[in-house]
This record gives sequence, structure tokens and C-alpha cells, in this order.
Amino acid sequence: MIPAGFLDDLRALLEIPSVAAWPETGAMQAAANWLRDRLARAGLEARLLSGPGKAPPYVYAAGPQSNDRPTLLIYGHYDVQPARRGDGWSSDPFRPELRDGRLYARGATDQKMNLLLPVFALEALGEQAAFNIKFLFEGEEEILSPNLSAALESFAGLLSADAVISSDGWQATADQGDLRLGLRGFCGLEVELRGAAHDLHSGVFGGGVPNPAMALSRMLGDLVDDEGVPRIAALRGAKPHEDEIARAMEDFDSAAWARRAGVAVAPPDAPVRTGLLPTIELHAIETGGFDEGLRTIVPARARARLSCRLVPGQTPEAVLDALEAGLRARTPAGMTLRLSPLPGRAHPYRIAADHPLQQAAWHALLSVDGRAPRFSYSGGSIPLLGEIERRLGLKTVIFGFGLPDENMHGINEFCRLTDIERGLACWQIMLSTPGKFAR
Amino acid sequence: MIPAGFLDDLRALLEIPSVAAWPETGAMQAAANWLRDRLARAGLEARLLSGPGKAPPYVYAAGPQSNDRPTLLIYGHYDVQPARRGDGWSSDPFRPELRDGRLYARGATDQKMNLLLPVFALEALGEQAAFNIKFLFEGEEEILSPNLSAALESFAGLLSADAVISSDGWQATADQGDLRLGLRGFCGLEVELRGAAHDLHSGVFGGGVPNPAMALSRMLGDLVDDEGVPRIAALRGAKPHEDEIARAMEDFDSAAWARRAGVAVAPPDAPVRTGLLPTIELHAIETGGFDEGLRTIVPARARARLSCRLVPGQTPEAVLDALEAGLRARTPAGMTLRLSPLPGRAHPYRIAADHPLQQAAWHALLSVDGRAPRFSYSGGSIPLLGEIERRLGLKTVIFGFGLPDENMHGINEFCRLTDIERGLACWQIMLSTPGKFAR
Repeated sequence: MIPAGFLDDLRALLEIPSVAAWPETGAMQAAANWLRDRLARAGLEARLLSGPGKAPPYVYAAGPQSNDRPTLLIYGHYDVQPARRGDGWSSDPFRPELRDGRLYARGATDQKMNLLLPVFALEALGEQAAFNIKFLFEGEEEILSPNLSAALESFAGLLSADAVISSDGWQATADQGDLRLGLRGFCGLEVELRGAAHDLHSGVFGGGVPNPAMALSRMLGDLVDDEGVPRIAALRGAKPHEDEIARAMEDFDSAAWARRAGVAVAPPDAPVRTGLLPTIELHAIETGGFDEGLRTIVPARARARLSCRLVPGQTPEAVLDALEAGLRARTPAGMTLRLSPLPGRAHPYRIAADHPLQQAAWHALLSVDGRAPRFSYSGGSIPLLGEIERRLGLKTVIFGFGLPDENMHGINEFCRLTDIERGLACWQIMLSTPGKFAR
Repeated sequence: MIPAGFLDDLRALLEIPSVAAWPETGAMQAAANWLRDRLARAGLEARLLSGPGKAPPYVYAAGPQSNDRPTLLIYGHYDVQPARRGDGWSSDPFRPELRDGRLYARGATDQKMNLLLPVFALEALGEQAAFNIKFLFEGEEEILSPNLSAALESFAGLLSADAVISSDGWQATADQGDLRLGLRGFCGLEVELRGAAHDLHSGVFGGGVPNPAMALSRMLGDLVDDEGVPRIAALRGAKPHEDEIARAMEDFDSAAWARRAGVAVAPPDAPVRTGLLPTIELHAIETGGFDEGLRTIVPARARARLSCRLVPGQTPEAVLDALEAGLRARTPAGMTLRLSPLPGRAHPYRIAADHPLQQAAWHALLSVDGRAPRFSYSGGSIPLLGEIERRLGLKTVIFGFGLPDENMHGINEFCRLTDIERGLACWQIMLSTPGKFAR
């Protein structure tokens, strides 16, 4: 049963094209205002906080704070990925359409639906809530939260809590939750290598001038071994714990993994490689204007973007330093290397399975589904988790709904009405049962 | 003194947009017809030969053939590079404009002006021509003459001659000619490496699936050493002769070379590296959609174009085989490699400085300029030269006018009226003095 008003509210929020990557048109402010007003309607003290830099407003709200209850800070983001009808959507991404039990719109699953779940759960609970509640919604998650760290620092007083619960996640299957025990960290670089001042005829000059495309290939290829394993010292020597490996490999369905990845055969230890070991990935290279057709040139420059995923014991700063030093040391004479870090540094993150809030989440999911959620290590990165830990000293549980097939970031994003029902049920149990998380 | 009619004829030919790379609009046929008629007006038996494949017509013409004179086959091409006003031209590229002693139009220097020079020279000489003359003009040079080899084979009877003179070249400076002693050969590959079926999230899958961008970088980077010197056996061990090295280094102006190349310092042996040694050059790489912005993906595929320049002792076929074998051997398990040769194979080419026609050209240039032409090795490649040698058993002298700064292939291509005057004078001497080239 979806409560009256939920779909109307969700539609209203989805109609605001709050795309953080787009030039500001007032949509970010409109979405923040809408959320502030909605949280106020739920009986919370709600207001907008001006962030540092060019950040759109942070939406902050707090319910009555009582000393005999633990305090939960609920995180979410109201910004969405870009979407245009012309990208291939079947309907306008900012005009939600309900078809066959699915609500189609940009942000439906990631994560405006998820944002509203705890608000409605809290209203339904009324006095039965077992926590003091605070909300913090940001508007820059999809552009890698460039101002979040500074914001957490400046709002640290307001945000004091016992733990954080992030609404930005998803479940394993239709009737099984997914609780993260860890995520990999992230850091990346954009690399540009310049040779001659302009593109040159490869017949006339080839062999006499440095070729930045070739040199960059050599430099980048040298970062890994033949198996693709990083050769940079700062990324080597990662040794996952035996119990982490066992947990990651639990119920590993190799065929399903291979299907999802679109490869013929999965590595037998795929969950370990993707969740517990570091990697260097090359995302994009451009040189010579491939799409301009055959031009037999020595290109004047070559560019690439690469990033690393980090595991405990590794920091974005140390890995970036090592990458930079490695690339500089490999730059041939006569060429100029320019490096700029990619936005979105993230520290690797761990939260124990027996952390009290993790346990509370586990019980809430178990009681709704009739089966235990799985614990997993994600290879992805959420800067928020490390930043909250570093700035506020708090652990974060990820408690999200929606299924992995709901096209988040893609065209025809949707959420299922069943996601909403299950999500509301879980949030209500979550917020009403403090478990061992007593103060 | 430019003879009456030359500029009118050149303008008429330049107005025909005979761009081989453009979908056929009748311009190729129109240019061929115009040339056939022009050669007929010069008193030659002229006709069009239907080429193999989709080749536009070859224009063939022959003057009276006498047994007591050697026979010269004069080569040229009537097609031009693409050009559009919107590319940045100051005037319509197919509406020739005379400004300050320069005629601006696509094809002005490369090579419609050069095509007409021997025609006018022959008319001026009349009975004093020392050679039997044949002309062959093709319409596919700018798209790498894909049908020329087959055409030479099928027209071999018609094209019998003692030597070939190509009008497709340029001079060293305003008052010094440039005679090529050799050119490098050419062969190239387009390479595509595929990993998973689609782009994947680098957090979720990174480390568990092969990264074709990284693997291709490694494979390509491995083709050369740290100095950029090819490591493929089929390209190693090239040993230029001492006298070739001496000739190539003659009057080498290191500062001018560096300026032209746009590098801070020229290698001390730049002419040897670019003219007498082989090279592998990477022209373009594309993977991950660099211009689409930061996408932290493991790309599904990576593509590159590369080519080799070859020196005597090396053949396009053997080098392509070695490249393919080298790349296949380096392809990591789980990835698919697709290779397709680039169009335009060329064998390396040599013609001796004391070849009789080379000597005749040398004397003609000396007598007009008052200084000897330079002999040079070009690092570029002209498939024609090797093909004529292989198909017809003939050596080719390159005898072209126009200066290297005249923007061939670029915007605002032009030729100088002084190029025309000098070219006509040189061609008249060339065609009237058989030198040692007696039968």
C-alpha cells in the first residue's frame, strides 16, 4: 500500500529538472525549496543552508531532539543526471509517466523516490520514531559533490549525530536487500602529452619528432602488467582479509555475473577483484581525431583520462602522487606532460557487519523480506562515506531501494511501485526499532 | 612570361570541383573530358581510358612516336583534395582568385598548374621536342590511387616508354629545384580491440573485466622502444649507405627544420631519421568518448590507426604481416582484435642521381636557376613510383614546381605566377634536351 500523496509528491519533485550538470536555471533552487517545504509539512524544522563555492543549497531539517534517543542523520541528494527526450527516452524525462507499475522519469530511482521514503515513513510513525532525526540533502551528488567536504566541515555542529544512514543505494533483488560492508576509494587524472607545436605529416617528419600518441600509449600501458594488474607501488600489496574474501565470494553466481558484464567467462574470483582489490582503469583516450578519417599525421598531442579504485591502506593523495611521479618519470625528452586530477576523490570505506546501525538495517530488511539481506563489498566509490567519517567521525549505512535494472543514469529510468511499498515498509521498521543502538 | 591562354586554361580546370573523395557529381568526368580536349588541342591523340573498379577515367594522350627518339611518359593527377569555403577559405576554393601574384584555388599548386606545364611546354616546342611524349593523368591520387596498380597492368601496352616523369612534386626554394633520390614506403593498419559487450561502470566491474583501452595502449606502446624506434623485426636492421647519409645531411639547416616541425630542438640527424630510416607512427586513437566528458567506464572497445614508413629491403606485405602477428601475439585473453589494412600501400623507392633522366632534369633546373637543384630523400610515400617500376619496369623522375608554403591540402591553397614562369622554362628545356637519354 502506497500512502496517499506519495505519488503526487514524487511526481512534483520529478518534474523539477534539477540537473546539477546543467547551467543554473533555477531548477536546483526550486527543488531545494520544494524539499524544505515538504520537510516542514512533515513537522520538521527545515531550512536551506548556503553551501561553500557554487553549491546549490543544502536542505537541512531536524525533528524534535530528545536526549534519550540516538540521533540519525539521513543523507540524500536531490540532483539528477542529465536527460533529454532526444537521447532516446520513450517519454519526456521530466514528465513522469506511470506504465505497467513503473514510474518513468529521470531521478525516479536515483534517487528522488528514495529521498521521499524516510520522510513518509517518519510521518507514518509519528511519536513511535525511535531516533532523533536529521536530514541533509545535497544538490551536487551527480557531479561528484565537489563542495560536500567543506560543507560537512562548516555544518559540523548542526549535523552532530550517532550515525548516518544514506538513502542513496539499491537492493540486491526484488525480495533481498543489500548492505554494503565496504566500497573502494577513487582518484583519477586527466593526462595530456604534447609533442610538436602542431600536427605534422608523418612521412615528412615521422621518426624525427616525438609522437605523443605513441609515447602516451607506452606510458599508460606501463602502469599495469600483462594481466592488467597495477604496477604502481602505491597500489600494490593489497591483501584482503580471509573473511572479507569469504564474504565477497558468498553465493557468487559466475554465469549471472558474466551475463551482466557482457563477457564470455567471469574470472573465478570476480567479486574479490572488483570489490577488494585496487585497479587502474583507462576511461578515454583521444588523439589524432580518429573520427575525422585517415590522416597520416604525427599528432601534436594526446589526451587520456584514467582513475584508480583504492582499498584500505591506500589514499587518493598517495596514489595520485605516485601516478604523477610515475607518468612524469616516463615522459620522453622533448615532450610536455600536463596532469590535472579528476574531480571526486574518495577514500576507501569499511563498516562492520556488526555495527549497531548495520544490524538494525539488517533486521528491518529481514523482517520485511522474510530473508536476510546480503552483505557485499562494492567496487564503486562514494566520497560522502569517507568524508563523513573524516569530518564528523560517523559511520554510514547505505539503505536504498530500487533494483539494479532500473536504468539509473540511462534512458527510460524508472522505479517500481513495488520498490516504494517495500522501501516504506523497511524504513518504518528501521526508524522505529533502535536495536542495540541505544544511547 | 606566361603564355597567352595558360591562366585561362588553368582557371577553367580549377573551376571543376574534381574532388575524388566526394560522391560523384560528374565533376571527375568533366575534368577528364576537359583534359582530353585540351590535349587534343595540343595536337596529341587523346582519349579516356576506363579504369578498373570505380576509378574515374584515366586521360591518355600520345604525340607522334618516332623510333629515333626516347619515349617519356608524363604522369599527373586531375583530382584534388576536398575544400569548402566554410573551412576558412578567404574566397571560394573553386572560383580562382588572383591576388598579389598568387592564384588562389583548390588544386592551384597540387597539381592542376603542374599538370598544364608540360602541355604548354610541348606546344611551345613544336617540332623541337626531343622525346616521344605520352601522358597519363589519373583522378584518384588524393584518395591513394586504389586502382592505379591494376590500371597500369591493363594499360601496360599503351604506356610503354623509356622512363616516366611525374609532374606531381615541388621545388626546394624559389630558385632551387628538388630532385628526389628516394622515398619511403608505406603500409598501415586500423586496429580495434574489443572487451566486454558494452561499456561498464569502472567501479562495479573494474579489475574483473579486461580494459581494451589499457590493453591497446600496452600493445601499441610495445611496438617501439623508449626512443620511439620500432621493435618489430621486419622494421629493424635498416642500414642506410654512407653516401645516402652524406647526401641527406648536406646543407642540413637544423634551426629551420625545428622551426618547420614546431619543436625546440631538431635531432642532429633529422634528415636521416625521416628520409632513410623506418618509423612506426600512431595517427589516431579513440576510446571511451573523450569529448563526451568524464565517464568512469571500462570502455567496451578501443580503436587506433597506425602506419609504417619503409626503407629499401622492407616491403609493405612483410611489415603488415609482422605487425599483425605482433599485435595478435600481444592480444590478452578474452579480447577480440580486429585488423584492417589502411588503403595506400607503397614500396620504398630509389632512383640514382646519375640516372639519365634524373641528369636531364638536373641540367634543366640548373640552366634556369643558375644553381644546381638539390638531391633529397623524402620520408613521404608515393605508391605510383613503386607500382610503375613493378608493373612497367620504369624509373620515375619527380619534376614539380611550386613552393612548399603554398598550402597544398590546406585552406587558401595557391600557386605563384613565378612558379608558372619557372616551371614552363624548365619543362621546355627538359623536353628539348635528351641529354644522355638517347635510345
